[in-house]
Amino acid sequence: MFTPRPIGFVRSPFKDVSAIPKGLGATHPEEGALEILPEFAAGLTDIEGYSHLIVLWAFDRSDGYDLLVTPPTDSCPHGVFTTRSPRRPNPIALTIVELLGRENGILRVRGVDMVDGTPILDIKPYLSNIPAEKLRRGWLGEAEARQ
Amino acid sequence: MFTPRPIGFVRSPFKDVSAIPKGLGATHPEEGALEILPEFAAGLTDIEGYSHLIVLWAFDRSDGYDLLVTPPTDSCPHGVFTTRSPRRPNPIALTIVELLGRENGILRVRGVDMVDGTPILDIKPYLSNIPAEKLRRGWLGEAEARQ
Repeated sequence: MFTPRPIGFVRSPFKDVSAIPKGLGATHPEEGALEILPEFAAGLTDIEGYSHLIVLWAFDRSDGYDLLVTPPTDSCPHGVFTTRSPRRPNPIALTIVELLGRENGILRVRGVDMVDGTPILDIKPYLSNIPAEKLRRGWLGEAEARQ
Repeated sequence: MFTPRPIGFVRSPFKDVSAIPKGLGATHPEEGALEILPEFAAGLTDIEGYSHLIVLWAFDRSDGYDLLVTPPTDSCPHGVFTTRSPRRPNPIALTIVELLGRENGILRVRGVDMVDGTPILDIKPYLSNIPAEKLRRGWLGEAEARQ
């Protein structure tokens, strides 16, 4: 396999995991920054043309994993791979952010749901959607419908 | 950080990277399977309710990285973080697949663009779309428009 290394770090208004909104209807309108390390900043060339980015980052405060998880959005357990739980076999997280601007190696973004200082593993362009009429959202869709 | 480990392996009709369609207009309608290792299969509980999954996997045949990449879809170089190049600082790949069915630890899916035997790192539910009218697709959108 490979040895993960940070390509940069998240700057976020959240200093602690408990401050991040969770559960049904939680939104993440907060602005923050992706500070990419100088040695990787050339990898951002032409990124301004994209409105949205996929950010892969490490749950670096998580230790171990559970295969069944009772998420804050529901009252019964579901498989970890149907959730965004940080306690997963490979503690990799994914957040989609809106790109607001760039100054050299710093990307100003909206939609951060990470703690300040979180290590970033990768950035990818958000390219396309699954047609809404084809999307089924499992137990989360059911929990939302019950609300 | 953490030590990546496979949670399973992709079964795909592609035995070699060169067989996978690339470039403008490439589609991936192929069916394949995500074979999750027995020790992680309980993490799939309730996954049948989701129509689409995000699969994170390892570019295990890639070695090293380039910060500037000339992709098959364009004639000039772009930053690696605006591309899906396998040669990236953390060789993690992302594919969105349609879930067709499940038999225990085996997920039958449509949309594989991985080589047979590729190690899977994580599976996450595909939950929502960015509104199409808000999406800008950078140099890739421009290359498509020129075609």
